[in-house]
Amino acid sequence: MGLLDFFTKRRESANVAKDRLQIILAHERQLNSAPFVEDLRKDLIAVISKYVKIDPSRIDVKLERDNHLEILEINIPLR
Amino acid sequence: MGLLDFFTKRRESANVAKDRLQIILAHERQLNSAPFVEDLRKDLIAVISKYVKIDPSRIDVKLERDNHLEILEINIPLR
Repeated sequence: MGLLDFFTKRRESANVAKDRLQIILAHERQLNSAPFVEDLRKDLIAVISKYVKIDPSRIDVKLERDNHLEILEINIPLR
Repeated sequence: MGLLDFFTKRRESANVAKDRLQIILAHERQLNSAPFVEDLRKDLIAVISKYVKIDPSRIDVKLERDNHLEILEINIPLR
């Protein structure tokens, strides 16, 4: 399944604002390499806010991890 | 399907460096709202390079669009 399909399915099933930005950081790493995506979070939101008006109180952040993969998901409603 | 499953399947099927960062920007938008993810691309790579050493020549960028969705995928091998 490609990304466009994945996000289209998610969009259809989600009952959320239709003007929304999702940032996903997936760090595929060998066992010994250090996790760092959570450190990036503030910087990423700062960069995005140069392009769109963001309400920090409505930003939703999720972090998922296993041995090989670290996924940070940042959801930003734009309206 | 959740993100961790989605990326685990992708990781298993991909024959690529095992220390890799993927950044995905999905902009779900109403018809009249302007696309902007491509403008973000340089700024995002600049922010990431504060955390990890990046070889710009190995960065792979894909942009997919339909009427409601704009997806920017940036793949950065880390070793």
